[in-house]
Amino acid sequence: MRSFFPPQRILMGPGPSEVSQRVLQAHARVTIGHLDPSFQSLMEETKAGLQVLFKAPDHVCLPLPAPGTGAMEAAIMNLLEPGEVAVIAINGQFGERMADMAERAGAEVIRVEHGWGEPIDLRKVEAALWARGAKVLAFVQAETSTGVHTDPGPLCALAREHGALSIVDAVTALGGVEVDVAGWGADVVYSATQKCLGAPPGLAPIAFGPKALEAIAARKTKARTWLFDVSLLMGYWSGVGGRTYHHTAPINAIYGLHEALCVLFEEGIEASIARHRRCHEALAAGITAAGLEFLTAKADRLPQLNPIKVPEGIDEAAVRARMLATHGVEIGAGLGPLKGKIWRIGLMGASATPLSVRTCLTALTQALMAEGFEVSLKDVLSAVEARLADG
Amino acid sequence: MRSFFPPQRILMGPGPSEVSQRVLQAHARVTIGHLDPSFQSLMEETKAGLQVLFKAPDHVCLPLPAPGTGAMEAAIMNLLEPGEVAVIAINGQFGERMADMAERAGAEVIRVEHGWGEPIDLRKVEAALWARGAKVLAFVQAETSTGVHTDPGPLCALAREHGALSIVDAVTALGGVEVDVAGWGADVVYSATQKCLGAPPGLAPIAFGPKALEAIAARKTKARTWLFDVSLLMGYWSGVGGRTYHHTAPINAIYGLHEALCVLFEEGIEASIARHRRCHEALAAGITAAGLEFLTAKADRLPQLNPIKVPEGIDEAAVRARMLATHGVEIGAGLGPLKGKIWRIGLMGASATPLSVRTCLTALTQALMAEGFEVSLKDVLSAVEARLADG
Repeated sequence: MRSFFPPQRILMGPGPSEVSQRVLQAHARVTIGHLDPSFQSLMEETKAGLQVLFKAPDHVCLPLPAPGTGAMEAAIMNLLEPGEVAVIAINGQFGERMADMAERAGAEVIRVEHGWGEPIDLRKVEAALWARGAKVLAFVQAETSTGVHTDPGPLCALAREHGALSIVDAVTALGGVEVDVAGWGADVVYSATQKCLGAPPGLAPIAFGPKALEAIAARKTKARTWLFDVSLLMGYWSGVGGRTYHHTAPINAIYGLHEALCVLFEEGIEASIARHRRCHEALAAGITAAGLEFLTAKADRLPQLNPIKVPEGIDEAAVRARMLATHGVEIGAGLGPLKGKIWRIGLMGASATPLSVRTCLTALTQALMAEGFEVSLKDVLSAVEARLADG
Repeated sequence: MRSFFPPQRILMGPGPSEVSQRVLQAHARVTIGHLDPSFQSLMEETKAGLQVLFKAPDHVCLPLPAPGTGAMEAAIMNLLEPGEVAVIAINGQFGERMADMAERAGAEVIRVEHGWGEPIDLRKVEAALWARGAKVLAFVQAETSTGVHTDPGPLCALAREHGALSIVDAVTALGGVEVDVAGWGADVVYSATQKCLGAPPGLAPIAFGPKALEAIAARKTKARTWLFDVSLLMGYWSGVGGRTYHHTAPINAIYGLHEALCVLFEEGIEASIARHRRCHEALAAGITAAGLEFLTAKADRLPQLNPIKVPEGIDEAAVRARMLATHGVEIGAGLGPLKGKIWRIGLMGASATPLSVRTCLTALTQALMAEGFEVSLKDVLSAVEARLADG
């Protein structure tokens, strides 16, 4: 076994995204104890930073020691008890995953199915909420499998009207599009570090609101998880003086998240969202100039996750392999029913730059030409520059 | 919010332990995609390295994206279905945690209670296994809360005789004392990165044996976890070509673990164990020369976790605070019934060096003197040097 040195890559898939040298260096600072007074201060700052980022001043915010899927499990397992009803809106892979987890929590799951590539339909969800008294309405704001954005505000309002708690998956959303937990009145919202936050994968920020915590305190049975039991986790993250040992926090990963939050606040959350939007528009101009099409309608598109249809007769895997080999550019494949049908181009966090857009489109165009697809690199790049010059 | 720069510390508590610059640098290498071909090679090497480390050539070995507690949850939730019987031997905090988790899995738990500081009693466990047909026998090899070592071999044999699967918690054991999964015939064994492996906290290596995987394949219900469902995880870690997306692996943490494995294999597993033993003996000589006592009988002691009784009339928290303030040395407090009664001195991974032993004992002796305890620093250090000179 020998030391591993990763190759140079430009990460433009569905995550992980680029991590800046500044965040990587923070990630590599010397490990200290998780009960050290100075680490406790770092935890407090991280909690406060997440409250600002989620726009959730009244929520308990903390980073779970797990991938985004761990936060999904925490949300589902803490809010649902056996026999309770969960309405899950499904419009892609991550909605499916929520439904699977809710079944494992012992809940009765009402699945509100949509086509992959469609946003969530309020009327369908409302019909499901009328059917039976649901404890929870869960859905994905930014479906990473399809690149579809759903506005959480109206769905959270609907949940409230029906006395249900809302769970919003904002894994790919946070930092790239508006996330406004207080404005939506959302009960539980979670994300992950490796998408638009610019930190390495491994942590899952989550926000639990007052009504969610009340429901958790009123549980009749223990949650079907110990590691993610929020009543125990809150004791560990409760602040200097009163902390109770729970697990050993992933110290260095929290250094990385903290630094990524510093970077994000220096840029400004709104500025970060505008940068994602601007890069998306430049990419979309190039995609159109290349004669390619989006899977999604314009109104539903996530700037940070661009689902591009694979043209008839093109070997999609060969295109991705060539992009990686010639330019070091990684883009994503389709999942589930979209396997072989789309590419997923990510513009997340530090990957959302004009330079990445140009490099990615150059690599894609050249790979398409190698596959016999007719396209002009000059036209593609001109369209990008015209869009960027527009602001 | 401003960048965080950790203070200089010497980590001699119950974990995290020191992380070498070499491992920290690996941890900070540039993030690549989790589906990148070169990351797939790294995963293969890491799996193979864990098989060697666990001495488990026939087990599926992989690092879970979570703290050690996540591996405990994975073991319990995968092996147990509602209504099945689990015998859990409890001789400290982590045995208690296993019992709590097994109840959350829906199992009927037979608790085999021991005093905190005692090793596990084979006869008591055998009596419990006779009582009812148990599916699982679970116990902790290295109880981090008490510093007690229990030899897993005879317990695993007992489980086999009674047709039960064995779960061995080797969180603090692996790399510091003998772990021989194949030799014991253990079914599921897990650990964590921040103890004797010398990597930052955040990953939990786990080994599932053939009988455990058979039992998992024969489950009638889905495991009460999606993130840690080993039938799904194996698809993600299945090797080049056949991988199925599950979660996003914590790329940089795996760089760190891989490098820590390189370091460990360069030293040699047996040499690492001998180093832990040698440092423990030097520390114990100093502890005795200081007029202090171990909580545990000599035969049961873990070299890497030394539980030292707090002398009558000494403010244990003041001693720890002074050690941290004057020498930057972190040691651990007691947990549960041992709170205020013991200190826990860790000698784990890169923290297990003669230099750390000297510094820790110097800091401890001076802090004790400040509290009015009579002790000679010269005698303490002479005892350490004499023991080290002995080999």
